[in-house]
Amino acid sequence: MIYRVGVVGFRGYSGAELVRLLARHPGVETWLVEHRQDAEHRPEPAGQPAARRIASEPDAIAAAGLNAVFLATPAEVSLALAPALVERGVRVIDLSGAFRLRTAEAYRRWYRAEHTSPALLAEAAYGLPELCRDRIPRARLIANPGCYPTAANLAIRPLLEAGVVDRAAGIVCDAKSGVSGAGRKPSLRTSFCEVVENFSAYSALDHRHVPEVLLTSGLQEAEFSFTAQLLPIDRGILETIYFRAAKALTGERIFEIYRQRYDAEPFIRIYRPGEMPDLRAVQRTNFCDIGFVFDAASGRGVVVSAIDNLVKGAAGQAIQNMNLAFGFAETEALL
Amino acid sequence: MIYRVGVVGFRGYSGAELVRLLARHPGVETWLVEHRQDAEHRPEPAGQPAARRIASEPDAIAAAGLNAVFLATPAEVSLALAPALVERGVRVIDLSGAFRLRTAEAYRRWYRAEHTSPALLAEAAYGLPELCRDRIPRARLIANPGCYPTAANLAIRPLLEAGVVDRAAGIVCDAKSGVSGAGRKPSLRTSFCEVVENFSAYSALDHRHVPEVLLTSGLQEAEFSFTAQLLPIDRGILETIYFRAAKALTGERIFEIYRQRYDAEPFIRIYRPGEMPDLRAVQRTNFCDIGFVFDAASGRGVVVSAIDNLVKGAAGQAIQNMNLAFGFAETEALL
Amino acid sequence: MIYRVGVVGFRGYSGAELVRLLARHPGVETWLVEHRQDAEHRPEPAGQPAARRIASEPDAIAAAGLNAVFLATPAEVSLALAPALVERGVRVIDLSGAFRLRTAEAYRRWYRAEHTSPALLAEAAYGLPELCRDRIPRARLIANPGCYPTAANLAIRPLLEAGVVDRAAGIVCDAKSGVSGAGRKPSLRTSFCEVVENFSAYSALDHRHVPEVLLTSGLQEAEFSFTAQLLPIDRGILETIYFRAAKALTGERIFEIYRQRYDAEPFIRIYRPGEMPDLRAVQRTNFCDIGFVFDAASGRGVVVSAIDNLVKGAAGQAIQNMNLAFGFAETEALL
Amino acid sequence: MIYRVGVVGFRGYSGAELVRLLARHPGVETWLVEHRQDAEHRPEPAGQPAARRIASEPDAIAAAGLNAVFLATPAEVSLALAPALVERGVRVIDLSGAFRLRTAEAYRRWYRAEHTSPALLAEAAYGLPELCRDRIPRARLIANPGCYPTAANLAIRPLLEAGVVDRAAGIVCDAKSGVSGAGRKPSLRTSFCEVVENFSAYSALDHRHVPEVLLTSGLQEAEFSFTAQLLPIDRGILETIYFRAAKALTGERIFEIYRQRYDAEPFIRIYRPGEMPDLRAVQRTNFCDIGFVFDAASGRGVVVSAIDNLVKGAAGQAIQNMNLAFGFAETEALL
Repeated sequence: MIYRVGVVGFRGYSGAELVRLLARHPGVETWLVEHRQDAEHRPEPAGQPAARRIASEPDAIAAAGLNAVFLATPAEVSLALAPALVERGVRVIDLSGAFRLRTAEAYRRWYRAEHTSPALLAEAAYGLPELCRDRIPRARLIANPGCYPTAANLAIRPLLEAGVVDRAAGIVCDAKSGVSGAGRKPSLRTSFCEVVENFSAYSALDHRHVPEVLLTSGLQEAEFSFTAQLLPIDRGILETIYFRAAKALTGERIFEIYRQRYDAEPFIRIYRPGEMPDLRAVQRTNFCDIGFVFDAASGRGVVVSAIDNLVKGAAGQAIQNMNLAFGFAETEALL
Repeated sequence: MIYRVGVVGFRGYSGAELVRLLARHPGVETWLVEHRQDAEHRPEPAGQPAARRIASEPDAIAAAGLNAVFLATPAEVSLALAPALVERGVRVIDLSGAFRLRTAEAYRRWYRAEHTSPALLAEAAYGLPELCRDRIPRARLIANPGCYPTAANLAIRPLLEAGVVDRAAGIVCDAKSGVSGAGRKPSLRTSFCEVVENFSAYSALDHRHVPEVLLTSGLQEAEFSFTAQLLPIDRGILETIYFRAAKALTGERIFEIYRQRYDAEPFIRIYRPGEMPDLRAVQRTNFCDIGFVFDAASGRGVVVSAIDNLVKGAAGQAIQNMNLAFGFAETEALL
Repeated sequence: MIYRVGVVGFRGYSGAELVRLLARHPGVETWLVEHRQDAEHRPEPAGQPAARRIASEPDAIAAAGLNAVFLATPAEVSLALAPALVERGVRVIDLSGAFRLRTAEAYRRWYRAEHTSPALLAEAAYGLPELCRDRIPRARLIANPGCYPTAANLAIRPLLEAGVVDRAAGIVCDAKSGVSGAGRKPSLRTSFCEVVENFSAYSALDHRHVPEVLLTSGLQEAEFSFTAQLLPIDRGILETIYFRAAKALTGERIFEIYRQRYDAEPFIRIYRPGEMPDLRAVQRTNFCDIGFVFDAASGRGVVVSAIDNLVKGAAGQAIQNMNLAFGFAETEALL
Repeated sequence: MIYRVGVVGFRGYSGAELVRLLARHPGVETWLVEHRQDAEHRPEPAGQPAARRIASEPDAIAAAGLNAVFLATPAEVSLALAPALVERGVRVIDLSGAFRLRTAEAYRRWYRAEHTSPALLAEAAYGLPELCRDRIPRARLIANPGCYPTAANLAIRPLLEAGVVDRAAGIVCDAKSGVSGAGRKPSLRTSFCEVVENFSAYSALDHRHVPEVLLTSGLQEAEFSFTAQLLPIDRGILETIYFRAAKALTGERIFEIYRQRYDAEPFIRIYRPGEMPDLRAVQRTNFCDIGFVFDAASGRGVVVSAIDNLVKGAAGQAIQNMNLAFGFAETEALL
């Protein structure tokens, strides 16, 4: 069976990446869903085949037989579209932050807006397969994780589960992201001349991705210090995570913890103690690469977690979730 | 005497460069002229001294005793402000394209807009000191040249004056500019993710800077092929200019032509035959560096002309013009 | 049948791209051929499958049953390896400049070295399929074209064949390349701090890729002005080509010339008159995108030709040649 | 009096910056000291005035009347040159790591080499004026601090002196540097194609700049976690520093601590609570900009410290030290 899937926001960076990756998928047929007309013209070669297009009317989408729709849209657009689609039996994979938290109250605090579908918010499955795969296959609505929490949770949770982290000393996550994470809408903050040859921190201790880390890792807010920073590159996230050991620990033991936890995971790659991934290792892939250094004498550890924010941090993970939802091999179109 | 000079558009890239360079000038006091309020906030250290500020009301500007105002503004704003300032005896140095051409007709063709002050347009002095210094000192309105024509005219005119160019074969000027030349207003075209790791041509044969080259060099439109291109860098213009010799010629002779023409010019630097400047040589300076390669056997020549688009291509040249207008040393604040 | 193919120089940029692209090819098995040991260590995830490796001994390579070997090596290494491989019945696709010209004399002039296999030089097939496909399938040695000539010839030859270019006025090709074209060997010229925020011209009128353009296009040296320039990006070549029409001509007619010439070519894409490709359109693809602007009044034309220097300019074209040599679909692993 | 000062290593990035800054200084005459001849040719305009040059012979340097010499050289070169110069009464400002630690033992551990002048090592003054100005004016040998420790110590020590940091929980310093900090010698690690669009961590917990932080701040090694990372930019260091409060604390109180400590310091600028500097604020200046965010509820703090690695992190600070040594205004040539 060929599934029909739509992409809302296909002109944005995550949406365009979705379209590019879906083109490789033998089991789906991609439809571009026009939401708001935007006039941005990009020169294109003559004579290219036309894509299938449809307007973002829920009834039309259901009538056209679309099995799923990816929302690569701002949270407020996802809030407007998701309920009507789900109601019509169209599965939704939402790449925005609209359905990632559990309660309307948490949404209000971190997104500074009212949530208009709290029941659906409570129902949504959080789509980080390696850590919460169970609920994804049958979910009507999958909340695709934020890019920062994806890299952070994959690195942190195995260590917490193994009980080797001194939580009282706190975990520090110093995160750096390429500019595509901020979306395609022009703004001064993402203008070339403001970003190039520059580097800057933003949302220190107060980023809206923080609650996703807390929910998935079980850390308390006071135990987790997070700063997001803007790298002068197009794509890639690298997070440098600092912790202190709760008990006697070695680099080899940490290596074993990660390997055992992720042994069967095709998208998680662990480096030998003392070796660190860089962004080149993961760009344009769905991998999350994890490396670390540990000083046994003092119990200090540094973990580096790297992903491509548009792939494992957005479009790739969304397709991984779709593969789970439709029963494809989880790696289809992603390796 | 200390001259009072105002800068309209001081938050833009050229305007900010003007403020930065004027701060080094012992003979002027700089006033920031608020035109349209823009909310852009950039974090700043606490406790910095406040700048002198004034609104862009011509009467207020005259009453405050400003001797000159730099307009680092779009052409339509310059068209609105310049006449009223000139009328009140405030000298104007306009960095926009509003007063660079000679006739309203030419303005209409290249800027696709009506010129509202054709008399002032006819009166304005074109502020390219090395090629037309005479009228600058006494001008009420100085039209600061475009960045592309500055680099092009300085390289081309000596060769044309010396009669060594085969004009019938045409001159090609392949121009590349950093992104700051497009101004600070956010747009998709100048967004980081669109520019980085990219390179693109625009306005081939049809750039509004072309008529400035024709007016200053004396070339006919059909003799001059120009393409502007966007470099993934902040600042700098490099133009690669191709010509064919009209008669027997050598690299040494070309070197002599340039050296004689620019012998007394502090801001023009000529390279030995076969050596070419790069952008690093001129960034953050008011220099125009010129190098070339010439093949005597075939009569083919390649000239490279490099400037910083924000300095010799904008703010630096504007101050050079101000120095001429007020009788300062031409290099004051610029070396 | 599965073909065994080796890659010499697999740690270089072109070689690594070959390995990456060949991994997608269902009809080949890739062997890494160790030539000179280089100690460069790049951190890698633990537990990756080992690649097939072999030393660069021609006898060993033949004994292992390799059907073809790609030489992603400097010209002097290719000169040393190619004859022995060809002799042993191993087909060679050479990515260096060693076998691209026709005579030892031309090689001496442009490469400033003696050619040690002039007979093989004369025999080699020039591997630019769109313009000289005939001899590739049966060639023992395929000389993969230079990156600059690939983009130039594909853009220029259709216009010359159609007789619309005024050759006496000369053709100008202003070429810009990403840094990966210079190879992976560290040098000051390709150091980050020398390249970033910079742009520079080199080898004006004297680049060793020029004779490839002359051979394939039929132009005389005096008719062709070429400058190579270094873009502060990783990959991509964009060439801006200027010509004058030999007779009455229109943009639509140029469009038809290109479309007819390349109608059946899967890797050449033509843009509508007035639209230009940028590098983003071709990066990580085997496409050559061609756009142009033409001013019918004056007969001036500007053509932009864009490729990825590591794909259509190196590894992708090499695989395209291999596909022809082994009878695969020409697009296998490349779309 | 005009002082004569020499620069060894003037072709390197720090050395070139020294020469550039010294040219603005009215009280000194700069001599280029040739050490090892390096053939690197960079095109230059014709007719530039020749610089004063001298060989790196200590006797010649003393005979020429040089009052001070800057060593912008690797540690082993500084070890070879500094003792002989000091002996001849020439003051030395060393930009390498050769004389920054206190004991040969510490040098052996962190630099993995023997120190050949332990007495001079013990005698040298550490040239971080804002924190240890006293011994600089009369020192024969000034050890100019490392770039990372400059930014770290200026941010950390006021908080430690005020006793507001919970040292048991540890301080994390996540440091990012532009590539010029690695010097001008070509290497794969600093090649353009390896760095651009990339980001990578190195020397986690084990960087040779760590002992400078411990010596100046008084922290124990186990209390300080440091990772150095390579930004794809030319120049600038930004360090993100995480701490936990030892007692009740507010952002306003932290602001006061910094302001009081640095009130009289011309090169330290403090931002209001919640505002952070970026690299643009400090590039090409001798400023160290410090901003922070503090969450009073949980006692978590994040401090950002930014400098230009070639100015406050190298050449600018070296001139600041020279100004102190010769009795010039500390800001001469630096504002």
